[in-house]
Amino acid sequence: MTEKYLITGFSGFVSRHFCEYLERNKINAFIKGIDVQDHDLNFDDYKYLSFDFEKIDLLSVNDIERVLSEFRPNFILHLASYSSVAFSWKAPITSFNNNTNIFLNILEAIRKLNLDTRILSVGSSEEYGNIREENLPLREDTPLNPTSPYAVARVSQELLSNIYLRGYGLDIVLTRSFNHIGPMQKDIFVIASFAKQLMMIKKSNYSYGNLITGDVSIIRDFNDVRDVVSAYYLLLHSGKKGEIYNVCSGKGISLREVISIMADILNIKISITVDETLIRPDENKIIIGCNEKIKQSLGWNPEYTLKESLCDTLNYWDSIL
Amino acid sequence: MTEKYLITGFSGFVSRHFCEYLERNKINAFIKGIDVQDHDLNFDDYKYLSFDFEKIDLLSVNDIERVLSEFRPNFILHLASYSSVAFSWKAPITSFNNNTNIFLNILEAIRKLNLDTRILSVGSSEEYGNIREENLPLREDTPLNPTSPYAVARVSQELLSNIYLRGYGLDIVLTRSFNHIGPMQKDIFVIASFAKQLMMIKKSNYSYGNLITGDVSIIRDFNDVRDVVSAYYLLLHSGKKGEIYNVCSGKGISLREVISIMADILNIKISITVDETLIRPDENKIIIGCNEKIKQSLGWNPEYTLKESLCDTLNYWDSIL
Repeated sequence: MTEKYLITGFSGFVSRHFCEYLERNKINAFIKGIDVQDHDLNFDDYKYLSFDFEKIDLLSVNDIERVLSEFRPNFILHLASYSSVAFSWKAPITSFNNNTNIFLNILEAIRKLNLDTRILSVGSSEEYGNIREENLPLREDTPLNPTSPYAVARVSQELLSNIYLRGYGLDIVLTRSFNHIGPMQKDIFVIASFAKQLMMIKKSNYSYGNLITGDVSIIRDFNDVRDVVSAYYLLLHSGKKGEIYNVCSGKGISLREVISIMADILNIKISITVDETLIRPDENKIIIGCNEKIKQSLGWNPEYTLKESLCDTLNYWDSIL
Repeated sequence: MTEKYLITGFSGFVSRHFCEYLERNKINAFIKGIDVQDHDLNFDDYKYLSFDFEKIDLLSVNDIERVLSEFRPNFILHLASYSSVAFSWKAPITSFNNNTNIFLNILEAIRKLNLDTRILSVGSSEEYGNIREENLPLREDTPLNPTSPYAVARVSQELLSNIYLRGYGLDIVLTRSFNHIGPMQKDIFVIASFAKQLMMIKKSNYSYGNLITGDVSIIRDFNDVRDVVSAYYLLLHSGKKGEIYNVCSGKGISLREVISIMADILNIKISITVDETLIRPDENKIIIGCNEKIKQSLGWNPEYTLKESLCDTLNYWDSIL
């Protein structure tokens, strides 16, 4: 039987890569996409997938209930999120509503309809928050200490998952996903923004340029989105109910080094000007995860090197600028 | 200068007792009450207090902002809450919205208006959740493990408080308040419900009766509401910014024993029938707090014995039934 996936946040770049993952692996699937925004997928490009799309706002309990009762998915890949930490500092209410409340609305609809649906609750490395270096790499049992409105929204989502798992018996698998990068990511995210700016410098035919940045000393665990979606597929099918899995590379690199690698790929010289107003309150200095759990229990293995990811990201910006 | 208090949940029983505390202690204050429901206070009964009341829904960001910008309180006593655990299992979304989201709306309004207001964020012992006996009594640094939708809502509130404290510099003091009891509590809460039923049996002139209950073996740390509001006054004036304080008696007693004490006071005999459908998923068996922190750092001392509280509660039901 063809499996049915409801994908929330269908218009985003992770959803796009998830569909490409299914197609590339010749997995037949029926996908219902929902998003507040239009999508730009051409359904005819996909041989193994059939699609339906509906523009709905997950803040509308009625709309979610209707969609779920009609579609009755085997899986929900819950990607809808306002996932920018910076945005969450500017608009904490909007961020919280569009992370935590939308997720609660989905869980409650599943419960009311008594559906036998497996849900992937996508969380964030930001949940770990203020981290001491002796606690690195971050493991799934590292205590959470969220330090941004976005991070709090994700921890709240996780706490709600526990209630629906233990109190109501829903089938939920959880992630704490670390930073994703790759083609088609929007430039509100840091690496995409740098890649776009660097490609603009390259295209202007200067061999050097200046980047205005926030704090580039911060260290993050970057993951190719194509590896992330292979993890999500695996977790939906083989993840253990109620378990939380880090989705991460296990390696940390500073933003400064990432800029340097991209500048090398493009063969340009870059100076950096730090704009103090771009530095956020309570920013985590260093985030590196441990991926032993998902590797050892489910056999996940990331396939893309950081350099490959950055090359593909730059090529993407080259193609659209 | 007369201090200005904004009290949310003004129509509830804790607010009523807070006002009586101020009056009894001859504290001049200007109180603006807000609630979604009408109140039944007679403002003329209070010599030291002046009042204003407005019926607003804290889910309306605009209404909160308007009220705060007009009133500019020195203190916010945030009592508005859907604080029933049982209700939260029946209507998790309503519970979450009316605990977490309303609180976030208040914090965000304070931030936007840049007010110098101290906020008392009232949390709950339920936040501690699934407790092992070796972790009793619960201390402020005991890890949280919320096991009901209500408890998750309260933990989320606390996490949001941390963000507004550390990220935006708001002045917030936090409590984890244990079960309150006392006159004027609504009978959706367990002790009030028992007191009302027992008083009805007493008034029917039978010397014995039967109570239909949920699990009466559970142990809770009950506090007289009049002691709770004295703690709140103290915390608003002397609590340390950003600190969390248990508000509790430090003593645990089972519901069965509470029923027995009340039956003795009324001189009636009571049998108990446990209705399995009233037993909740994932109920905490035993909750007892440690009140050393608030006692030692702020000198709080509860004044009412459990028996006095139960007597006064029964007298209240006697007066209105």
